Amino acid sequence: MSTPPLRWDGTRLYVLDQTALPFDERELVLGDADAVAAAIGRLAVRGAPLIGIAAGYGLAMATAAGEDLDRAAGVLREARPTAVNLAWAVDRVRDAARAGGAEAARAEAARIHADEDAASAAIAAAGAELLQGASSVLTHCNTGALAAGGRGTALAVILALPDVRVLATETRPLLQGARLTAWELRRAGRAHEIVVDGAAPGLIARGEVDAVITGCDRVAANGDVANKVGTYPLALAAQAAGIPFVVAGPTSSIDPETATGAEIAIEERAPDEVRHAGGAPLAHPDTPVRNPAFDVTPAALVTALVTERGVARPVSRATVRALLDTRGAR
Amino acid sequence: MSTPPLRWDGTRLYVLDQTALPFDERELVLGDADAVAAAIGRLAVRGAPLIGIAAGYGLAMATAAGEDLDRAAGVLREARPTAVNLAWAVDRVRDAARAGGAEAARAEAARIHADEDAASAAIAAAGAELLQGASSVLTHCNTGALAAGGRGTALAVILALPDVRVLATETRPLLQGARLTAWELRRAGRAHEIVVDGAAPGLIARGEVDAVITGCDRVAANGDVANKVGTYPLALAAQAAGIPFVVAGPTSSIDPETATGAEIAIEERAPDEVRHAGGAPLAHPDTPVRNPAFDVTPAALVTALVTERGVARPVSRATVRALLDTRGAR
Repeated sequence: MSTPPLRWDGTRLYVLDQTALPFDERELVLGDADAVAAAIGRLAVRGAPLIGIAAGYGLAMATAAGEDLDRAAGVLREARPTAVNLAWAVDRVRDAARAGGAEAARAEAARIHADEDAASAAIAAAGAELLQGASSVLTHCNTGALAAGGRGTALAVILALPDVRVLATETRPLLQGARLTAWELRRAGRAHEIVVDGAAPGLIARGEVDAVITGCDRVAANGDVANKVGTYPLALAAQAAGIPFVVAGPTSSIDPETATGAEIAIEERAPDEVRHAGGAPLAHPDTPVRNPAFDVTPAALVTALVTERGVARPVSRATVRALLDTRGAR
Repeated sequence: MSTPPLRWDGTRLYVLDQTALPFDERELVLGDADAVAAAIGRLAVRGAPLIGIAAGYGLAMATAAGEDLDRAAGVLREARPTAVNLAWAVDRVRDAARAGGAEAARAEAARIHADEDAASAAIAAAGAELLQGASSVLTHCNTGALAAGGRGTALAVILALPDVRVLATETRPLLQGARLTAWELRRAGRAHEIVVDGAAPGLIARGEVDAVITGCDRVAANGDVANKVGTYPLALAAQAAGIPFVVAGPTSSIDPETATGAEIAIEERAPDEVRHAGGAPLAHPDTPVRNPAFDVTPAALVTALVTERGVARPVSRATVRALLDTRGAR
């Protein structure tokens, strides 16, 4: 790729402005923690792991500039208050800064970045082994380099399959598939087509898809998966067609404190996301809207959960627990 | 409703321009067959039954004006070449014109209109009986007065249920739910919310929907239903949640020559429908697209098929055949 989604030159952070994609490839130069927080807040940088990487570098810059670390950490954390990776990355770099100053902070930020890259590579390798032989896969939302370290999670698996044809759902309301996944696949020179979310299950039923692979926002202890709305119908269609439905993500997405998917609170987002698309108004401005951000796919519909620490298959309380134990033993 | 979707004053046809909805309620005055054909061609009038009604009046105007009937009939038929109702209505009015002149043509056009209104009322009554007690129903696409005679098909059933709350899917790519169904429900003063297509199955799984009801584009002899893409995942989700999935439509939608859904050719529409929404570009202009117009829901997932001639329940070759026999005996 000519312009990477995120790069660090040792003193400053450069990110591709994702709000301008796919029409404009504009790199933002972020010289301090406030600029990083602003870019995260307006979704110029998005995807939980990528936000964590950016915030780590943001706090490293604050440390180098001799800023008040608590203030900088607070500004970064507040940029997306619900993102767990963000708070976790900020804490790691702040602890390093307190212990070893600017150099240690920079090193810790780089380590977070390297860890995320390594996780992506491990997920890609494990997922590709699982899906070898598939000639057509379908994915949802954006789970590539624009969302995570390396080449991402589910999209990294797809990119590790050399000759696979990719169907990408557009992913309403915010169109991460049509805008971002299609852009990544285009840059990677990979054969792909976009499809409206409602059409994907019918194409699966017609035998046009060999496997479905998506990311995950949170995995409950029993293996139920919360992910972007539109994931659950893909799992239902995959089951009906007898093809694998695979979920890929880091073990940090597994929440052992959440027993089942029923306990996952579903964020309801702003109605204007549904009333508009690509900036155009679609409905009357007062039209009432339901806009849940996620849906829950029961573990029984998930063929395999692919993580950087291995694969849970079948997906059950026991196999998910085994992945977590591996993580603890690291 | 202040401005009806279609009205006839005895000499001219007035239609609401559906391309301007929901933002602008603009009535078009159509004074001859060419104007009717043009309005149908640019989707100012849409919905198979409503197109048939409009075309009938169009040919009645051509007859009154002493035009060449074969030419006028051809222009009307060509406006939407795949719409079966259109050709059928044009043939009916042309036969009447040949037998009895302008007065007979006008009467036949009015009879088509009245028949469609009566079919809507019969479907509404039968469907409402079936779904009585439901407090929340979900529907897809637009099946109201903007698509058919009277108050439509599936939406007519919903409007016949006095206190039901309606969830309407936006229905990408052309957004008939967000633009048209929401507009009809608003004008009818009915509680409703729109939702992106991908989010509907998750809301069904969470127990927020008591029944799903949709229209149908074509029903095969075994009861398989071809309808707007996004219908099949709703049927899967309804089955998984144990709620009824009901299909409403006139018996003219049943095609006894098509044995099963597998024989239904699925129209692939223009890629720009997917690359845009509400006029806004969403994806790179060269992004490859799959844009099937319909999907097929197997009869086994359909709880009941509601027609103007009665209800098939369960939906099988035998019960569908029984409806057709009733039609033949009419």
